[in-house]
Amino acid sequence: MLLQHQTWQEIETYLTRSKGIILPIGSTEQHGPNGLIGTDAICAEVIARGVGEAADALVGPTIGVGIAVHHMGFAGSMTVRPSTLIAIMHDYVLSLARHGFRRFFFINGHGGNIATCQAAFAEIYAEFEGAVGLRRDDELRCRLANWWDGKAMSVLSKEVFGDDEGSHATASEVALTQFALPETIKQAQMDPPRAPSGRFHGPADYRRRFPDGRIGSNPSLATPEKGKRFYETSVPELVKSYTSFVGENA
Amino acid sequence: MLLQHQTWQEIETYLTRSKGIILPIGSTEQHGPNGLIGTDAICAEVIARGVGEAADALVGPTIGVGIAVHHMGFAGSMTVRPSTLIAIMHDYVLSLARHGFRRFFFINGHGGNIATCQAAFAEIYAEFEGAVGLRRDDELRCRLANWWDGKAMSVLSKEVFGDDEGSHATASEVALTQFALPETIKQAQMDPPRAPSGRFHGPADYRRRFPDGRIGSNPSLATPEKGKRFYETSVPELVKSYTSFVGENA
Amino acid sequence: MLLQHQTWQEIETYLTRSKGIILPIGSTEQHGPNGLIGTDAICAEVIARGVGEAADALVGPTIGVGIAVHHMGFAGSMTVRPSTLIAIMHDYVLSLARHGFRRFFFINGHGGNIATCQAAFAEIYAEFEGAVGLRRDDELRCRLANWWDGKAMSVLSKEVFGDDEGSHATASEVALTQFALPETIKQAQMDPPRAPSGRFHGPADYRRRFPDGRIGSNPSLATPEKGKRFYETSVPELVKSYTSFVGENA
Amino acid sequence: MLLQHQTWQEIETYLTRSKGIILPIGSTEQHGPNGLIGTDAICAEVIARGVGEAADALVGPTIGVGIAVHHMGFAGSMTVRPSTLIAIMHDYVLSLARHGFRRFFFINGHGGNIATCQAAFAEIYAEFEGAVGLRRDDELRCRLANWWDGKAMSVLSKEVFGDDEGSHATASEVALTQFALPETIKQAQMDPPRAPSGRFHGPADYRRRFPDGRIGSNPSLATPEKGKRFYETSVPELVKSYTSFVGENA
Amino acid sequence: MLLQHQTWQEIETYLTRSKGIILPIGSTEQHGPNGLIGTDAICAEVIARGVGEAADALVGPTIGVGIAVHHMGFAGSMTVRPSTLIAIMHDYVLSLARHGFRRFFFINGHGGNIATCQAAFAEIYAEFEGAVGLRRDDELRCRLANWWDGKAMSVLSKEVFGDDEGSHATASEVALTQFALPETIKQAQMDPPRAPSGRFHGPADYRRRFPDGRIGSNPSLATPEKGKRFYETSVPELVKSYTSFVGENA
Amino acid sequence: MLLQHQTWQEIETYLTRSKGIILPIGSTEQHGPNGLIGTDAICAEVIARGVGEAADALVGPTIGVGIAVHHMGFAGSMTVRPSTLIAIMHDYVLSLARHGFRRFFFINGHGGNIATCQAAFAEIYAEFEGAVGLRRDDELRCRLANWWDGKAMSVLSKEVFGDDEGSHATASEVALTQFALPETIKQAQMDPPRAPSGRFHGPADYRRRFPDGRIGSNPSLATPEKGKRFYETSVPELVKSYTSFVGENA
Repeated sequence: MLLQHQTWQEIETYLTRSKGIILPIGSTEQHGPNGLIGTDAICAEVIARGVGEAADALVGPTIGVGIAVHHMGFAGSMTVRPSTLIAIMHDYVLSLARHGFRRFFFINGHGGNIATCQAAFAEIYAEFEGAVGLRRDDELRCRLANWWDGKAMSVLSKEVFGDDEGSHATASEVALTQFALPETIKQAQMDPPRAPSGRFHGPADYRRRFPDGRIGSNPSLATPEKGKRFYETSVPELVKSYTSFVGENA
Repeated sequence: MLLQHQTWQEIETYLTRSKGIILPIGSTEQHGPNGLIGTDAICAEVIARGVGEAADALVGPTIGVGIAVHHMGFAGSMTVRPSTLIAIMHDYVLSLARHGFRRFFFINGHGGNIATCQAAFAEIYAEFEGAVGLRRDDELRCRLANWWDGKAMSVLSKEVFGDDEGSHATASEVALTQFALPETIKQAQMDPPRAPSGRFHGPADYRRRFPDGRIGSNPSLATPEKGKRFYETSVPELVKSYTSFVGENA
Repeated sequence: MLLQHQTWQEIETYLTRSKGIILPIGSTEQHGPNGLIGTDAICAEVIARGVGEAADALVGPTIGVGIAVHHMGFAGSMTVRPSTLIAIMHDYVLSLARHGFRRFFFINGHGGNIATCQAAFAEIYAEFEGAVGLRRDDELRCRLANWWDGKAMSVLSKEVFGDDEGSHATASEVALTQFALPETIKQAQMDPPRAPSGRFHGPADYRRRFPDGRIGSNPSLATPEKGKRFYETSVPELVKSYTSFVGENA
Repeated sequence: MLLQHQTWQEIETYLTRSKGIILPIGSTEQHGPNGLIGTDAICAEVIARGVGEAADALVGPTIGVGIAVHHMGFAGSMTVRPSTLIAIMHDYVLSLARHGFRRFFFINGHGGNIATCQAAFAEIYAEFEGAVGLRRDDELRCRLANWWDGKAMSVLSKEVFGDDEGSHATASEVALTQFALPETIKQAQMDPPRAPSGRFHGPADYRRRFPDGRIGSNPSLATPEKGKRFYETSVPELVKSYTSFVGENA
Repeated sequence: MLLQHQTWQEIETYLTRSKGIILPIGSTEQHGPNGLIGTDAICAEVIARGVGEAADALVGPTIGVGIAVHHMGFAGSMTVRPSTLIAIMHDYVLSLARHGFRRFFFINGHGGNIATCQAAFAEIYAEFEGAVGLRRDDELRCRLANWWDGKAMSVLSKEVFGDDEGSHATASEVALTQFALPETIKQAQMDPPRAPSGRFHGPADYRRRFPDGRIGSNPSLATPEKGKRFYETSVPELVKSYTSFVGENA
Repeated sequence: MLLQHQTWQEIETYLTRSKGIILPIGSTEQHGPNGLIGTDAICAEVIARGVGEAADALVGPTIGVGIAVHHMGFAGSMTVRPSTLIAIMHDYVLSLARHGFRRFFFINGHGGNIATCQAAFAEIYAEFEGAVGLRRDDELRCRLANWWDGKAMSVLSKEVFGDDEGSHATASEVALTQFALPETIKQAQMDPPRAPSGRFHGPADYRRRFPDGRIGSNPSLATPEKGKRFYETSVPELVKSYTSFVGENA
């Protein structure tokens, strides 16, 4: 149930039964030789839609560009500054709050966004209640969930990809996008099959250490079928989280 | 050709033949009894994809939430502050400029965005060249095009809807979304069939004067077939604009 | 009736009969070989004073520097960033609102300001009512009027200057400053008499294409007498707009 | 020699003989029963023009609205936030620096601006040289001078008004505006003749303690003739300061 | 070796042998009935000094107030907004970078700061190299370490306090401040001895659920002797991290 | 009585008897051959603690880094931008105001901070009362006091150091740090014994004119005993100021 596909009267009706909304947030950054630049936004969005459907919850517009400074050494990567993302999330939450929404459940597709999202929540909470039309400082609540969160997800990843999962351009996220958008599947040589692991500093250093963009992964093992398993494990996990979040006592 | 559906190597290749990119920008706001809240983003995106295909041009991620302060009296409408949108566009343009993009063609779906987009362009141009890695102050160029721009479009609108086109929740934009997303078509009574016209001030005043959100339009006349005609007229118009824009001498 | 030339008690009295105020906004930028750098501010100010006198309306301080990034290739041009202009207008409007002003009529002298002014209005409207001491979101209203607005003005321009009016350093604006400040009239050769027309990008490109700063105009045709005619046509046009604006029902 | 009254070619010529510019900065705030709301801007401007004439120096556009938070209890007073004034001054200075200006001499008419002006200078100096097109961090220099600065001025004030000078809506500033704009002279009863003195907090407290807006002054003693004496003493003082400032070795 | 206790010549000498600096960051917020409001800053500072001494590294000034929005229901708690903390860290890092510092090791005392610190790092990294005087985008590196990081620390905590450690106003942090500042030790009844655990929303909700400020802890078990054990375990852990961080190849 | 060394319950009790708090603010910048980089923060802090003790007033966390742009030519100097310092002070004051604090007495150790502190006060006062939870615009009051303020202090300085006091890296501030932290006393040759005096522009110019960082001073005359005299004169002066400030009628 996408906010964008509803009329305002349908939202008015929705608000009579729920104050919750799901907001997908992704990133637009390189994901190695066969990963899409939009991987993180696509994953966040497909999972959010699944959760929305299963939980009868509204899903708002996706924040497509996140914090991807370190990927700027690879063509096509985009980033906003953290201060910009804080402003975006501030405005999204407070404009929805005007209509009565009170629980904001962000489904995230990019590890690099987590810190700034938490900072944005604190920025939002730091405003005086009166200045944003609230009566009490705990009425409005935000939570961040990653689509890969939960024990079941790490068990699945271990089972399906083992040590080839990696930490960027992971096998599971590539698989999930292949499940979501089979028409975009790319063929690419991986050399070496499993990318090296490690830390890095700044775009230039990242590209020097990880010349094709992957970190620790072998995403040539990804298939749409495997992606489907991740989808089907993630959605019920997040349905649980969402349901418990919106059900909290005020 | 969507940026999000490419790999970074494909973008690297693209940059050898073009420095141009199309960026759709919409809004998330009420569009009357049968118009989708996402209408403006959907229209901008579908036209941008058509232009990208026809002109062999890359299409970047959609800015889904725009300047919709006046619609905040209707449930589900979202807005960012102009200063936030300026920051977003600044960051999008300057991060793509790092890879060599030099022509930024925004395809817009919402009249209320135009002013802030122009302000954002001036904000971007106001930075010193050295501070953003450019050599000359006219290397980087932005342009805004609305999907309804051009003589052919107003002729078509007159022919198809006459005085029922209106100025918000227009018959043509509703038709275009019906063409783009036929599964989302809504049935709704329009009372009166053609909404009243006029100016307004602030959300409360807007809702008082235009209680169902429409201004001057009768979008119950919209059909997917009519939407297709708008699509097929708009795309070649904008292909011309885009081609001339990216072909300008440096 | 200039705010700056009144005492606070006189303003207190004024507020018992009107909630409206006129605010001139100009620019400080090159206007070709015989146009003053202050042209846009001078025009906005002289027209605003005329309107104020005719409509018995208060005129506030002129915003003298606007958005003139593209003119920065010519000595003496100044610009603020759009984000700065938004902050200025925000502060002007909200500080006057503290005293009870509710209708803000900006008389503008520079096309390049329009977009940012509209963005500033949206920024102002986006604040929560409670946070700025208002009771309702449509109490406070801003409007922008250009001194050249209206059918009568374009008819006059056509009649007086025909195709020599141009689009920057226009014959009419130079004439208007000559009427307002006859002691500043400059003599200069125009070569060619009518400047070339067209689009441009960034200061360097502007100067390359339009080496003396004019676009499409022949301002050597300007005289104080012609300027007087523009003055006498513009003022009553804007008096009508202002009167209707302040007379709107709350 | 006003920047606004020159053409860009005249500024280009000016820059071959000087890198200095004078920028008046005032305020728009109550000045008691017979003082103009524009007093501080009028004073700064008239003195700046005198200094410009005497020193053959260019005078830029006046910043008309300053920091006047404490006067907001009196109708017609306007204020910008300090962060806005910092942005304004930043943009003025850096856009003029693009043309080659290197010495910025602000002539100030309002004590309440001093702190924020100094803060603005530090904000400007804090930018990296490369980011604003400079070669060395001491090329660009700003200085603030108040029109009442200098020993000769305080001697004159003592002689002419003694203890009736006061500290807000002073007799000398009212006299100076009467000299500059004799057509605006106001008649008003002062009760008591000399206003009380002391500190205050916030607009409400200010108005409670100083109900007609004056602090410690008796501006009914002001005359245009006395204003002329202040003008004729101030201008040569500031000519000296300006000349020494622009003459400093780089 | 505190930056504040050195002369500039001593820093010049230091920079010939190291480009690294340690920056403590804490918080000023309630820590239950016997915990100091300054606990997080005190802990960060004492550990940082220990690491500085052991690693012959410079220690800069402590950022004393962090992100503590949720603690605002308890008297004396202070917070900055995340956008403010980002500005602070940006300015600290870039001003030290002017002198040649290239490795910034923040030792943190407050879990609530982690997200914003990571956001601040990305904000810093997002600036163009040229705009901040760097040659390459990976020259300048920031890292965050919490004083409680590392396996040895969690083993120690388990051993010393078991389930009484808790998650706010922890037994170990109280003990560490008692070791650092024995003269500040407070006596207080804990009722119940071990505080309840759980999540919360906003200051009001926090105080309702955790009326004395503690979460899950029994800090009455803290002693200076136990604090010393935490100190002596934490310092060598962080010396290792710091040494490896500054030793990284450029 | 340091805020950081209290529990929240102790602050709750304090607020029943006082609404005042002292906030030290310093700088981190070169202070010549024998002056500590932390001089200004150390002085502000030691005096603030003395005043707090004598006046039974709470002392909050020190703002350690101030506005020191001009010192950036000397290793180890740090600075924040004025806009950052304004944000910091805004957040400190408004978060303490949430608990009921209403009088904010900043004790300052650095002349270069004064302007920005005053600007910050105006920025704080400029917010609408309702937006920050106040009932009236003069409830919340800020004041700045320098530790060297007052006639007694300048008499003492004249008596102890005469013309060797100077204006940066002064003999008295070095003496005060020697009294506060005798273990940090440095030995250094002063050549010449008394540094030259004068104005300067930007870091490079500062260092060229004042190569060892001092201006007009001979801090080799400093001793802890002399520092004690400054301490013992400053504290009672500021106790008087503080007491009168917190005692003002609302």
